[in-house]
Amino acid sequence: MSQTKVAPKNSLPKTMPALKKVRSEPGLTFCNEVELPIVGPRDVLIKVTHAGICGTDRHIFEWDKWSQNRIKIGITTGHEFCGRVVKLGQAVSRVSVGDRVSAEGHIGCGVCEACRTGNAHICDQVQIFGIDCDGCFATFHKVPEENVWPVNEKIRDEVAAVFDPLGNAVHTVMTAGVSGKSVLITGVGIIGLMAVTVAKAAGASQILVTDVDPKRLALARELGADDVLNAREPWVADAKKMTGGRGPQVMLEMSGHPQAIRDGFAALQPGGHVALLGIPPDDITIDLSNAVIFKGATVHGINGRRMFETWYQMERFVLSGRLNLDPIITHVIEMEDFEKGFKMMQTGEAIKVVMRIPN
Amino acid sequence: MSQTKVAPKNSLPKTMPALKKVRSEPGLTFCNEVELPIVGPRDVLIKVTHAGICGTDRHIFEWDKWSQNRIKIGITTGHEFCGRVVKLGQAVSRVSVGDRVSAEGHIGCGVCEACRTGNAHICDQVQIFGIDCDGCFATFHKVPEENVWPVNEKIRDEVAAVFDPLGNAVHTVMTAGVSGKSVLITGVGIIGLMAVTVAKAAGASQILVTDVDPKRLALARELGADDVLNAREPWVADAKKMTGGRGPQVMLEMSGHPQAIRDGFAALQPGGHVALLGIPPDDITIDLSNAVIFKGATVHGINGRRMFETWYQMERFVLSGRLNLDPIITHVIEMEDFEKGFKMMQTGEAIKVVMRIPN
Amino acid sequence: MSQTKVAPKNSLPKTMPALKKVRSEPGLTFCNEVELPIVGPRDVLIKVTHAGICGTDRHIFEWDKWSQNRIKIGITTGHEFCGRVVKLGQAVSRVSVGDRVSAEGHIGCGVCEACRTGNAHICDQVQIFGIDCDGCFATFHKVPEENVWPVNEKIRDEVAAVFDPLGNAVHTVMTAGVSGKSVLITGVGIIGLMAVTVAKAAGASQILVTDVDPKRLALARELGADDVLNAREPWVADAKKMTGGRGPQVMLEMSGHPQAIRDGFAALQPGGHVALLGIPPDDITIDLSNAVIFKGATVHGINGRRMFETWYQMERFVLSGRLNLDPIITHVIEMEDFEKGFKMMQTGEAIKVVMRIPN
Amino acid sequence: MSQTKVAPKNSLPKTMPALKKVRSEPGLTFCNEVELPIVGPRDVLIKVTHAGICGTDRHIFEWDKWSQNRIKIGITTGHEFCGRVVKLGQAVSRVSVGDRVSAEGHIGCGVCEACRTGNAHICDQVQIFGIDCDGCFATFHKVPEENVWPVNEKIRDEVAAVFDPLGNAVHTVMTAGVSGKSVLITGVGIIGLMAVTVAKAAGASQILVTDVDPKRLALARELGADDVLNAREPWVADAKKMTGGRGPQVMLEMSGHPQAIRDGFAALQPGGHVALLGIPPDDITIDLSNAVIFKGATVHGINGRRMFETWYQMERFVLSGRLNLDPIITHVIEMEDFEKGFKMMQTGEAIKVVMRIPN
Repeated sequence: MSQTKVAPKNSLPKTMPALKKVRSEPGLTFCNEVELPIVGPRDVLIKVTHAGICGTDRHIFEWDKWSQNRIKIGITTGHEFCGRVVKLGQAVSRVSVGDRVSAEGHIGCGVCEACRTGNAHICDQVQIFGIDCDGCFATFHKVPEENVWPVNEKIRDEVAAVFDPLGNAVHTVMTAGVSGKSVLITGVGIIGLMAVTVAKAAGASQILVTDVDPKRLALARELGADDVLNAREPWVADAKKMTGGRGPQVMLEMSGHPQAIRDGFAALQPGGHVALLGIPPDDITIDLSNAVIFKGATVHGINGRRMFETWYQMERFVLSGRLNLDPIITHVIEMEDFEKGFKMMQTGEAIKVVMRIPN
Repeated sequence: MSQTKVAPKNSLPKTMPALKKVRSEPGLTFCNEVELPIVGPRDVLIKVTHAGICGTDRHIFEWDKWSQNRIKIGITTGHEFCGRVVKLGQAVSRVSVGDRVSAEGHIGCGVCEACRTGNAHICDQVQIFGIDCDGCFATFHKVPEENVWPVNEKIRDEVAAVFDPLGNAVHTVMTAGVSGKSVLITGVGIIGLMAVTVAKAAGASQILVTDVDPKRLALARELGADDVLNAREPWVADAKKMTGGRGPQVMLEMSGHPQAIRDGFAALQPGGHVALLGIPPDDITIDLSNAVIFKGATVHGINGRRMFETWYQMERFVLSGRLNLDPIITHVIEMEDFEKGFKMMQTGEAIKVVMRIPN
Repeated sequence: MSQTKVAPKNSLPKTMPALKKVRSEPGLTFCNEVELPIVGPRDVLIKVTHAGICGTDRHIFEWDKWSQNRIKIGITTGHEFCGRVVKLGQAVSRVSVGDRVSAEGHIGCGVCEACRTGNAHICDQVQIFGIDCDGCFATFHKVPEENVWPVNEKIRDEVAAVFDPLGNAVHTVMTAGVSGKSVLITGVGIIGLMAVTVAKAAGASQILVTDVDPKRLALARELGADDVLNAREPWVADAKKMTGGRGPQVMLEMSGHPQAIRDGFAALQPGGHVALLGIPPDDITIDLSNAVIFKGATVHGINGRRMFETWYQMERFVLSGRLNLDPIITHVIEMEDFEKGFKMMQTGEAIKVVMRIPN
Repeated sequence: MSQTKVAPKNSLPKTMPALKKVRSEPGLTFCNEVELPIVGPRDVLIKVTHAGICGTDRHIFEWDKWSQNRIKIGITTGHEFCGRVVKLGQAVSRVSVGDRVSAEGHIGCGVCEACRTGNAHICDQVQIFGIDCDGCFATFHKVPEENVWPVNEKIRDEVAAVFDPLGNAVHTVMTAGVSGKSVLITGVGIIGLMAVTVAKAAGASQILVTDVDPKRLALARELGADDVLNAREPWVADAKKMTGGRGPQVMLEMSGHPQAIRDGFAALQPGGHVALLGIPPDDITIDLSNAVIFKGATVHGINGRRMFETWYQMERFVLSGRLNLDPIITHVIEMEDFEKGFKMMQTGEAIKVVMRIPN
């Protein structure tokens, strides 16, 4: 117990490359000589092999208002990844050196009611890798043992590297409950597109999708959407017509756009369920009486993923072969080409970009 | 089958007294010579003995904007009542002359998915007695057999006459789920006060109440509230403190007031449940991200009562002796004194007023 | 209201052909001169076009012990069908002459708590067509308006004719909840096979099937089962291995066989859900402690179909195009060839047989 | 991190008194010179102040067949307790020396799906204190940090010492769901009696209780049962009559007695819920068709308590002041008088016995 368990002959370097926010301005910096994280008694050190670029990383890259208020200068970014365990803290007992792993990016306090009831994702004190503390855009990444997720050998690295956003999609779909139901997905960014294939796999009987981007609507259709609606035009009446007149039974809100939210509620069938994942940038104005109350609607706020119920659901979905993620993970690039990755996301050329992390 | 079943020797009069809206202006008119309703093959005619005055009736009495848009001149008002069956339509088979009954005030279309799955209360085509068709402020009232509710002999007339609003309270409490949970009730008008005693009976471990009226707060405490909060002062921090720092697990929103709604969400514990019954008069502005999404809250829109799941729950609660409704039903008056009844409601002297209906 | 609504020029015959149990012995009798049912004020008369033969009909045909105790001599058999409405009772308002319809075969009392809360299928007083009263193996069939189900124009007659057993499968699958879960189906008779395609459509991530009949196992695989297990050999360890060591999360019990029930519970994952549809012919012996209690299992008894929640689910599944029923409905024959139909079911040559009913 | 955190000047003794099973025969031995547990990096050492005697401890004391097969000679018994933290392992971060605590008695493996989804109580590899490893009938007790439960300062020691069985009762009641429902409790041993007061607090509208012991039935009534039934006589018809003819909506099975289980299912209302906590000593014979399937019943196997959802529910119930545990905790004795404690349980003089543990 007194000596740290390390893989034999696997001596770790002193420094590593990492993508950091070093100045209060747009962009990230590829730093070559970053010190390795210090491994506490309950921590696991992971050699990162692949990391996904999240929309949140793009906010940090673009240095928007939210990022300026939230991100500490000097932080290593990134929170979606997979890799191999290379070192264990003294008290770690449930993970082994050599395990191929991903990890949950939310770190709960561990002592509150949320944390102790499978809801650490909504802990009041939650910390997020790459936002509140150093993240995974680096050769080595440290996470508490509790957050480590062993990756099934049948799951490819690129997929394991995007478990975090895929988990958002799975949590949204499974919380709303789509089995045997008509489903409307408003907004098909990365997670919205994932939600299409997840909703299909989870048994939705009909999937409608709205977005302003014809390319993404076409991709949604490829992933299993039965009908797509151009959100630049009025679409509520069409959505009702497509669902036998009453409207979809479930709305998965993935856009955060106030008008999409209002329109989605207007289309929703009485007694329907809504899962809200998209984050409106500001307060929104809504006719709560007609949208929610008279309709007897049920609305679920969605944040992160359940720890770890969602991860098991996700693993089963991936292993079932019923998810189609290949058209979503459009690019795998080297970490040093990160600027190209962010640009492809900005232009819409890429959907999800995964980076290979250098040794 | 060809002859109408009527109680022997119980010949019905040709006309009856009824409270009607006869002019597009405030007030109601006590009409003495109103024709009895025509009883269709599936209808039941009821001699009304007691009827409750609802907040909705007060809107119609005061002739506010909503009433002017919704109410047809000439209608008989009222939808909360109890009475005795006096005549059956030819195809009626599940009710007998002489039965003491109340009735659900929502009439569903009967053929839509909502109506055929126990959710007629949210039928798109729903009609409400006293609003869309003639109501129960009259000696005789006609309802479809399906809407009739036989009243247990152990339940007093005054209580049976307010099953409609009590059902709202029960539906709100049971949908949110309060058993073993800390509960916040924002707004204690008639239904909010009923919700206090229902939540207590349904197993809430702690009940907090907010309102602007000290008299109603005192009554809420008498009915079982553990703590009361004056909504004229900031109260969110206090509500959190009273619930061990994390906030109440359940909010029952009974005020329809935008600030109460926003404050209630702010106080709510992460992962909490909200049931919205109060109707905001206009669109409201809300920080959906912090109120619902990041918190992983679940929000239930509440309209009417489930038909008839809520009625069975209500009957069991009343029969259990665990409800305390006497302090809520403050006045029983004669129908001819209806103006006094409305005034006592306006001044706050009365909470719930029940009228005795003349023979 | 006083005259019966009949389709113009559609004069009904005085008698009709029907399949009846006329003697207390095996077999059914094709009777040519059966009087048409009398249509009460709330009844609908239907010209039957197609009717499915149920396993229950086979029991009645074979005149087993259960049938001898339950079936009244003289009854017209059959409860799965589709057809066209030809006549309405005086108080019928929600169905029209000419409508293509099927109907729920359970008739609830209409006044009990089960009936008034969407659970008429478990009404204590429930009557079943073709068992407790005349059924649909006849040119004309009478059902209460409440039981009538309008058939969507996109659904074929043969499929509409088997909504009853399909509804059993849908109710079983949806009550257990299979979305994103590993599912074990023990026994693939007609409803078990339907459950395979329903579970697949409803989002099961993995489907295991057990049976003693290799032909049915092969068909189960064709319908979407991922793995099949021969119930003549021990299979519990294999089922666990196929599900990552922990066992399936859901068991759908479709055999009624005591050993299948015991083995299924033994295979079940801790915390798993079981839906019991198969009827054990006698009391069974079971280790309740290990099967249910220590495992924290949840067990759902399944009877009939929810009225009408299951019907809406079923319609959506059929319209989604995600069900594969063609390999299950193996034969469509004329009613006069009913003996051949029963024989093909007995030999296993047929799975589901649908009869065309003569005009 | 390298030094163990100990309370200053609180030097621990080398040995302690403990109740041990030292020979394969009835009885326990009060051993004076037992070595203190070795504290691993994630363990917490607790000075036990109070410990409850469980029915399981009585089995071990009496050395029945189950005990002989399960219990290792030499073990320290006991698993219900409260005390103060006196020493922390090196990696412990969520507990402090001096905290007053109780602890969950089940130790999950920590890595399986059950353990990682709030269901460690049904982990396949679960270990139980006082059964599979040394327990709390000793001055010092060691538990993993994850199992520790901080006791609210308003909760008395005697109550905190019986959180384990109280948690069984709470888990049973909350899983079945009793709010606004009629509830039957079959068997009122210690946990059955606790279930009466918990069901009452959780909002049951009516509570019926069966047992063979008049004294316990009287106590059940004192704790809130509305009606009690002598299980030595036929009682099913009475239970139905007391619940308006349809039977109780919920059964909490606390006896493990085959006839009580069969009778309870016979009394249950169609669509009802059953929670099985009592452990039948052998296989039981049951008419699954009528008990569960035709009735559309839902049956929940109950094992332990949810970790830690149940603990939070329990804390809220205790703090609400709505539980009445005083008549159940009948005796508080010194640990050295343990034989007297077991005898009072055997004779029925005592219900729950709590021991004061020597310093």
